[in-house]
Amino acid sequence: MQRIDLRSDTVTLPTEAMRKAMAEAELGDDVYGEDPTVNRLEELAAEKLGKEAALFVTSGTQGNQVAILSHARAGEEIILEADSHIFFYEAAAASALAGVQTRTIAGVRGVMDPREVERAIRGVNIHFPRTALICLENTHNRAGGAILPLENLQAIYELAQRKQVPVHLDGARVFNAAVALAVDVREITRFVDTVQVCFSKGLGAPVGSVLAGPRDFIEAARQWRKRLGGGMRQAGVIAAPAIVALTEMVDRLAEDHENARRLALALAEMKGWQVDPGLVETNIVIADVAGTGRSATEWLDWLAKEGVLAVDFGDTLIRFVTHKDVSSSDLEEAIRRIHRVVKRL
Amino acid sequence: MQRIDLRSDTVTLPTEAMRKAMAEAELGDDVYGEDPTVNRLEELAAEKLGKEAALFVTSGTQGNQVAILSHARAGEEIILEADSHIFFYEAAAASALAGVQTRTIAGVRGVMDPREVERAIRGVNIHFPRTALICLENTHNRAGGAILPLENLQAIYELAQRKQVPVHLDGARVFNAAVALAVDVREITRFVDTVQVCFSKGLGAPVGSVLAGPRDFIEAARQWRKRLGGGMRQAGVIAAPAIVALTEMVDRLAEDHENARRLALALAEMKGWQVDPGLVETNIVIADVAGTGRSATEWLDWLAKEGVLAVDFGDTLIRFVTHKDVSSSDLEEAIRRIHRVVKRL
Amino acid sequence: MQRIDLRSDTVTLPTEAMRKAMAEAELGDDVYGEDPTVNRLEELAAEKLGKEAALFVTSGTQGNQVAILSHARAGEEIILEADSHIFFYEAAAASALAGVQTRTIAGVRGVMDPREVERAIRGVNIHFPRTALICLENTHNRAGGAILPLENLQAIYELAQRKQVPVHLDGARVFNAAVALAVDVREITRFVDTVQVCFSKGLGAPVGSVLAGPRDFIEAARQWRKRLGGGMRQAGVIAAPAIVALTEMVDRLAEDHENARRLALALAEMKGWQVDPGLVETNIVIADVAGTGRSATEWLDWLAKEGVLAVDFGDTLIRFVTHKDVSSSDLEEAIRRIHRVVKRL
Amino acid sequence: MQRIDLRSDTVTLPTEAMRKAMAEAELGDDVYGEDPTVNRLEELAAEKLGKEAALFVTSGTQGNQVAILSHARAGEEIILEADSHIFFYEAAAASALAGVQTRTIAGVRGVMDPREVERAIRGVNIHFPRTALICLENTHNRAGGAILPLENLQAIYELAQRKQVPVHLDGARVFNAAVALAVDVREITRFVDTVQVCFSKGLGAPVGSVLAGPRDFIEAARQWRKRLGGGMRQAGVIAAPAIVALTEMVDRLAEDHENARRLALALAEMKGWQVDPGLVETNIVIADVAGTGRSATEWLDWLAKEGVLAVDFGDTLIRFVTHKDVSSSDLEEAIRRIHRVVKRL
Repeated sequence: MQRIDLRSDTVTLPTEAMRKAMAEAELGDDVYGEDPTVNRLEELAAEKLGKEAALFVTSGTQGNQVAILSHARAGEEIILEADSHIFFYEAAAASALAGVQTRTIAGVRGVMDPREVERAIRGVNIHFPRTALICLENTHNRAGGAILPLENLQAIYELAQRKQVPVHLDGARVFNAAVALAVDVREITRFVDTVQVCFSKGLGAPVGSVLAGPRDFIEAARQWRKRLGGGMRQAGVIAAPAIVALTEMVDRLAEDHENARRLALALAEMKGWQVDPGLVETNIVIADVAGTGRSATEWLDWLAKEGVLAVDFGDTLIRFVTHKDVSSSDLEEAIRRIHRVVKRL
Repeated sequence: MQRIDLRSDTVTLPTEAMRKAMAEAELGDDVYGEDPTVNRLEELAAEKLGKEAALFVTSGTQGNQVAILSHARAGEEIILEADSHIFFYEAAAASALAGVQTRTIAGVRGVMDPREVERAIRGVNIHFPRTALICLENTHNRAGGAILPLENLQAIYELAQRKQVPVHLDGARVFNAAVALAVDVREITRFVDTVQVCFSKGLGAPVGSVLAGPRDFIEAARQWRKRLGGGMRQAGVIAAPAIVALTEMVDRLAEDHENARRLALALAEMKGWQVDPGLVETNIVIADVAGTGRSATEWLDWLAKEGVLAVDFGDTLIRFVTHKDVSSSDLEEAIRRIHRVVKRL
Repeated sequence: MQRIDLRSDTVTLPTEAMRKAMAEAELGDDVYGEDPTVNRLEELAAEKLGKEAALFVTSGTQGNQVAILSHARAGEEIILEADSHIFFYEAAAASALAGVQTRTIAGVRGVMDPREVERAIRGVNIHFPRTALICLENTHNRAGGAILPLENLQAIYELAQRKQVPVHLDGARVFNAAVALAVDVREITRFVDTVQVCFSKGLGAPVGSVLAGPRDFIEAARQWRKRLGGGMRQAGVIAAPAIVALTEMVDRLAEDHENARRLALALAEMKGWQVDPGLVETNIVIADVAGTGRSATEWLDWLAKEGVLAVDFGDTLIRFVTHKDVSSSDLEEAIRRIHRVVKRL
Repeated sequence: MQRIDLRSDTVTLPTEAMRKAMAEAELGDDVYGEDPTVNRLEELAAEKLGKEAALFVTSGTQGNQVAILSHARAGEEIILEADSHIFFYEAAAASALAGVQTRTIAGVRGVMDPREVERAIRGVNIHFPRTALICLENTHNRAGGAILPLENLQAIYELAQRKQVPVHLDGARVFNAAVALAVDVREITRFVDTVQVCFSKGLGAPVGSVLAGPRDFIEAARQWRKRLGGGMRQAGVIAAPAIVALTEMVDRLAEDHENARRLALALAEMKGWQVDPGLVETNIVIADVAGTGRSATEWLDWLAKEGVLAVDFGDTLIRFVTHKDVSSSDLEEAIRRIHRVVKRL
């Protein structure tokens, strides 16, 4: 039985074009700035994201941490959503490495109220840390791939500029947002100072992310990347498939979104499963199995036995992620298998 | 016109007995462990707080930070209430110095729901920081001197023990809680592993706090105190008045609580002022002046001109703190002056 | 004119076998532990280095920093040679990330006197940091590729064990040492607790290093790698060429050593250049041009115009590194070109 | 038998004038900037040290650490003498708290060669940390109270200014240097940007030090002091004796120096003891007992039995420190007792 892996879009395997690009990449030593493929990727990413410069990094976590290290220093505070990846899934790296305090705001589907953000920005007082950064996440993973509305981005950016606090976007899946909104990604990134984007999620590259922003910021980031050990030599071998990801794989994200919606509609029909298809905006579906009287873990075990893989997002929450390696017929098959398990209960 | 200072109980001046104790203190070099007065204070504090050992520190912030540094290491997470002193008023020191991530839970009047605490304790996952510490604050400053119920303390302590997470109490004003509850302070501190208590607030000593806990913890804390520069020489000069504070000044906190209740009742009568005297459990009164159409800052200016000092706790919130240097007749006078300002409006 | 690049062995380009391995690598998501190629590399590296387990990292710096973060905590001290890569070239990352103090010992050609190491280990005293780690570097880059004698390694390891201080080896070029000594690399790594080895230097892989050590250490290291952003997805694309490096490229390092010796002999003949061929033990040659009355920078410019690239190692020192992409005839050509510049002076 | 304590000048007890000053000090809440005695001390210290502003801290370690935290940020490097207090005796706090790498230079009697300092300042290179600070120590404790020559201070300061690197002086005993050189202390402090001076060593105050420097630097330092828990309330109780120390106790340091010289001359006569009285410039005497065939620890035990206390500075080195609580007749008595032990051997 073939495994249908809906755990994450990170499991995507490189395309043939990517493997070819890797094998044929023109290479050099990137620590000397001489890898032409890395240089090309960084220029391309900066241009596509509407920023002055960009830096290739080995993961979304590295992109976010290098951003925080470059924006802030120890004893300062960063504002971020309470369920954001940086706060929830990066093993406290922001505090461990940069020495910053995390000030969280509970969002509604990942969206922070600008008034709460404004209130969270600290005034001048010896007891208060300086607010060094506001972090956003778009699409928002734990909110089920939710898209931050452009007006929300704009409102936060405007108050941030007024308060002279920079804004960083964890845009691991920002192209999913752009595709779903049918806007150029720059319509999103214009409302942030710096942005991190992953090539190894829905875009299908094997490894890597990019951090984009002002030129002097990227220069500082380059040294922090070095400290974290992200300075690589012939990094063109992984930059090459990232170029394919960035140039050829963006538009097809729409298929993943369509598959996610179909999955959500199907799950909503299943007994005891709670899913609101109206909330599925991109490639993530979160289902609540509380109504089945069984835990997420139990369900995941049963599904795994049928070759359908997903992950839990809490006691009764299950997350499914659609991606290029699950075709629409794979998805139909996955739905059939889930249905089979449900009926057996 | 005599100033009536209700900004904080930190403004209390040492008593004559304290000044005498200072001047006559038997001294030695505490870095060599030879200051008999410091040693006496540490033994006394450990015994009164029901812990094996104690360490004299120069402030509540130092006691809390040394505790965090001794309990946790970089890349771990601590759980604390969203309005707690450690999170709100210590300039992000926990992240700056110890490299820990702060995970906040919004409490109700400073009281965290044990179920939320339990949910916030991290499981084992490479993406998650280890939960190294739970911090409580009792009485809770920004919650208006609220007392954590003993059952809440017990519930959190029991789950913490089950999960093998230590509990630290920021007990800057824990004697106010004990006096108000009419219990021995050990009825509170038995539900925490380590506790920090201030001598320089309601107890009236000029300087200093104490951190108490298990003996090996205190030994580790001693070296962290050294790193922070809290290792002092003839520290007996400030330990001596702290002994007076600890032995002679605890019971009289009841007067401060009585004064706070009277102040709350009086303020509740004033036009546009909102105060719930039922919520005034110790020596702090928080009033909301939103109903007056004026900001806290405006009110503070007017009151200051009448010689009544308080601080703001947000846009329309004013905090008053009663203490030994405001007698009940001073308090009556303060009420008269506030009334005068209110009427003038 | 073809460029002959002797700046570093990091400039080596992947072989055809490596490119093929990349393109055909069996892949999975390494964050889930499912990349078979990464798993194979880690097992292979652990076995070859004589350690229980290994972790693939993106650079030597990352391997060293993750090792330090896993061995030590903030407020501890590490002992290392004054000219070591970790101290000299990692942008203070050990102190920035791990919060450890660097205690340096000036070695003789990279070799620390065990008596000095023993004296540098701290006793128990509240003023002293605990000594958490001793770091060695073999071969030693700034000492001109010098090999640490096995007896020196043994002497330091024995005292370290006696003092219960772990030993970490920055073995970026440890295979050069093993090949030059004609011993199995385990004859070296048996005298250290943990070791980092680079695939992207003389071994020719495009990217990556490995950290090897005890199993529980590697588990801790895995989380620190995550915090630094070194957790990658289909990392097999870079692990595949690293496997080629580890299995096919070690023995040929002997050619680089032979080329380095020839270069040293030739340079030693040049007017005003000081080189001791007897000190050239592996693939690095350091020449002092003080006797020419010109600076290293001036020489480097002239050589670059002739298409011969090297780097400076101080005001009058030039470093040349031989590697697989400089054949013996390339080397002869490089010598001719250098000679030409020398004569022109 | 009366104990004669030559372990350190930190053991000095406060004078009657200091105790009186403490008991009568005018006080306020220093966190609000309202302690008139602290304010007076800070102004006085700034003026005496020739700096714009000053900050009262609880120890020399706190003054030094706050200085480093205010001058530097994580990932930068500080240059300091290999035997300096900051490097040797502050438990790695500079790296633990500020995240800076310590780059040590071995001095001659505490004096660093300006050329070595210049060489140690890093150039611009992604592999290099920025050099953020040069730290000096005057008088130098582990060098036996040695004075840094004014020309050395000037040479280092001039090159530091040229390189735009600030200079901090650990002047724990800078008044000993000034008195011994018979110059105003500003003749020393003019060659540094910031300086820390202890009141609790030879000057006899029970507790405290001061950090002086530019006004904006002191403002930054004030918040770092807060983070370390050095913000105190009625700190005037310890600032008052510090004012006495600063105004009345400086000149008498000459007596300590005279006593140290007498002690050195006497020890130099003792069999197997090696002391060079010509090197005793201030109040510290270091004797080498290697020639006696016994260790420092053995000697210290025997001396302690005779009521003479000192400390070891290594296997065969003993340090004696003279101070106000050892009169010249006490010193004669100490010499007699040491002599007695020597003869007994």
